[in-house]
Amino acid sequence: MLSAYNIIAKKRDGLELSEEEIKWFINGLISGDIGNYQMTALLMAIYLNGFNTKETAALTDAMLYSGETLSFNVTGVVDKHSTGGIGDKTSFILAPIAQACGVYVPMIAGRGLGHTGGTVDKIESIEGFKTSLSLKEFQKMLEDHGLVLIGQTGEIAPADKIIYGLRDVTATIDSIPLITASIMSKKLAEGAQGIVMDIKVGNGAFMKSKSQAKKLAKSIRQTGLRFDRNMMTVLSDMNQPLGDAVGNSLEIIESIETLKGKGPKDLTDLSLHLAGGMIYLAGKAKTHTAGIRKAKEVLKSGAALQSFKEMIERQGGNPAVVEDYSLLPQASHHHVVAAPRSGFITKIEATRIGLHCVSLGGGRKKAEDKIDFGVGFSFHKKVGQKVKEGEPILTIHHNENQRDLALKISDEMLSKDIKIGRQKPAKIPNLIYETETSWSQK
Amino acid sequence: MLSAYNIIAKKRDGLELSEEEIKWFINGLISGDIGNYQMTALLMAIYLNGFNTKETAALTDAMLYSGETLSFNVTGVVDKHSTGGIGDKTSFILAPIAQACGVYVPMIAGRGLGHTGGTVDKIESIEGFKTSLSLKEFQKMLEDHGLVLIGQTGEIAPADKIIYGLRDVTATIDSIPLITASIMSKKLAEGAQGIVMDIKVGNGAFMKSKSQAKKLAKSIRQTGLRFDRNMMTVLSDMNQPLGDAVGNSLEIIESIETLKGKGPKDLTDLSLHLAGGMIYLAGKAKTHTAGIRKAKEVLKSGAALQSFKEMIERQGGNPAVVEDYSLLPQASHHHVVAAPRSGFITKIEATRIGLHCVSLGGGRKKAEDKIDFGVGFSFHKKVGQKVKEGEPILTIHHNENQRDLALKISDEMLSKDIKIGRQKPAKIPNLIYETETSWSQK
Repeated sequence: MLSAYNIIAKKRDGLELSEEEIKWFINGLISGDIGNYQMTALLMAIYLNGFNTKETAALTDAMLYSGETLSFNVTGVVDKHSTGGIGDKTSFILAPIAQACGVYVPMIAGRGLGHTGGTVDKIESIEGFKTSLSLKEFQKMLEDHGLVLIGQTGEIAPADKIIYGLRDVTATIDSIPLITASIMSKKLAEGAQGIVMDIKVGNGAFMKSKSQAKKLAKSIRQTGLRFDRNMMTVLSDMNQPLGDAVGNSLEIIESIETLKGKGPKDLTDLSLHLAGGMIYLAGKAKTHTAGIRKAKEVLKSGAALQSFKEMIERQGGNPAVVEDYSLLPQASHHHVVAAPRSGFITKIEATRIGLHCVSLGGGRKKAEDKIDFGVGFSFHKKVGQKVKEGEPILTIHHNENQRDLALKISDEMLSKDIKIGRQKPAKIPNLIYETETSWSQK
Repeated sequence: MLSAYNIIAKKRDGLELSEEEIKWFINGLISGDIGNYQMTALLMAIYLNGFNTKETAALTDAMLYSGETLSFNVTGVVDKHSTGGIGDKTSFILAPIAQACGVYVPMIAGRGLGHTGGTVDKIESIEGFKTSLSLKEFQKMLEDHGLVLIGQTGEIAPADKIIYGLRDVTATIDSIPLITASIMSKKLAEGAQGIVMDIKVGNGAFMKSKSQAKKLAKSIRQTGLRFDRNMMTVLSDMNQPLGDAVGNSLEIIESIETLKGKGPKDLTDLSLHLAGGMIYLAGKAKTHTAGIRKAKEVLKSGAALQSFKEMIERQGGNPAVVEDYSLLPQASHHHVVAAPRSGFITKIEATRIGLHCVSLGGGRKKAEDKIDFGVGFSFHKKVGQKVKEGEPILTIHHNENQRDLALKISDEMLSKDIKIGRQKPAKIPNLIYETETSWSQK
């Protein structure tokens, strides 16, 4: 007979759990027959003793079917997901690019909590943009127009919400099988036929080391394949913010600039790489390289920018923001952080930058916190670049009552978070470390 | 700053927790600031990554001071605790023996749950025996008379009750530091100056192997020393029931018989060994051997039996039970389990015997179950003894409506729980494997 006790004891002793046991446990959690205190004991046992591919797939499956699942009446539906980083706004760029190339892009995105920002918070910088559609509206909009962006809904994988909440307070976040099941249960429920997974590596990411990130990438591909999805995993750098802007409306502006072909190189390159992957997985290009080529074309032609404008309009926002940034919330004050000496930028602690943004009000400490869309940072220098004494490294965008806070952040950045060395750093982080593709056999 | 998350993460990563962290966590659990779901994650991390002596002492301390603590105005206060086994009724024998030798014996005992019986349930076979005194009454009775036996109270180490409840449903019972802290927090709060710990080893005990039991013994001695207690640990066999009787009033009768010098050899020997240890720790004998000699004297003289009678009278029971067993609850029916073939008893699965006693109503499946005092088993043969076909191995004591159940138990015992071999077993379990004493330096 199945019992919570025996299932916990089995994993505690390092044994493999059966599919039946895992599903029974998750169903019990949802129904309330199994207590949160039993789930967290199991989570810690999984964290310490691991889950193999089969167990991870069973957990994913149980979480996936804990709620609604979508499937679309069109083919070529490909989504992208990122494990989260500072200044990561690729979604706003790659989604219109992919859509302009004929890919159907169903985005169900998250809000920010802790040091990373949220895609949904950022797009809500555009007044009126509606991120809370019903799943029916979402499906129709996708099938009719090929691009839609909404926030997470309780109907999709509710088990993940419960389990994530428990992991968050019991130090069991950082486990490859649990991360895999959390991400994949949502992405699979959302009905994408192909998934491009951008796995961030570095001081601003969950995955601090390449070897850990590679393991997560493999686990995600393997799980996707078990559910007959075409999978691409990309390991990309998060040892400094991506692009130059950090902060909600600042990142929207930078995304539009990038769609206009005037974005920072790292952000543009990564967006094209990921969009190219989506185009490839959707069958709209024969190779990843051909996909990237197509992505470049629609960026250059303005078709991607046009796609973004149309999405804004469909979802209730004012598409004129694309031409007039004054329609977006902007902080009233600026504080320039200048280099205290000449040299080279050798390090920018991305996580700390994210936390400073939260302290300005640009992110949430608690789930109920309100976001201040206008605050944030514009970087003028990145790792490896030369800087002269007195030259601006970044600008802090803050409100009038935050002068002291801005000064404090500036001091902390210069004393702790941003390092200036005499020599050009020997190793400047690559933007993209690895790309792997796995095709479903179906 | 202390946080539940960081403390869990530290133990998850196999690091040592500070005394401050452990106390803060347990206090948070008691106050409700830390959720049960966080406690169970930490418990699993402790189960898998361990606790060293220092951490175990800190946990014991935090649990100990979660409630009332006693201290007595007399010296020579020594308690005994057993990790639990089937047919273990030594308390009723060794406590009067020790008291008759001048030891003060404050017993706060448990009720039965699962396969083992409880000392408090057994003594309650004696009608009117009051096991729920206030701690003040308990202290006065001990100081005035040197012997008192009560049930566990919520005032002593309430943290243990919460934590034990959580361990019980999350497969984290079987951890040496957690067992140590659970036992020692209660025993230390109860104010004994010396503690004799009877650690059971074998198929009917928590500790299945001698090596595990030795580790627990060491952990308990070390923790006791940290709190300046004199400690004796005894490893004793639990590969078959102790003595011949299993069941509440049957065990009281056997205890009285033993106090009259007519008890089974194993029960008598272990009781004298443990009582001798208490006498030694209390400073009433120069060596353990001398303590055992004194114990034998008061058993022989009848002083121990007299002490037991006086305790019964003080605590509201009828001391005439000692002469007239018909005053105790007795089952109306008997079913004799006879040997299906001649040979030697090679095995008696003690845990299974305990579970059969529970199924007759002699124990509890749930905390709210009522006990039937009269039911149980009387063994006529033990491991290593010769048996002829048709000869009684044991008698089942049951009620009228339990004829079918008795037959079923008899069948299961003969087919599964009691093994009869052709040859005398090469290894007959020793009764006592190891005795270690540690003296406080204070």
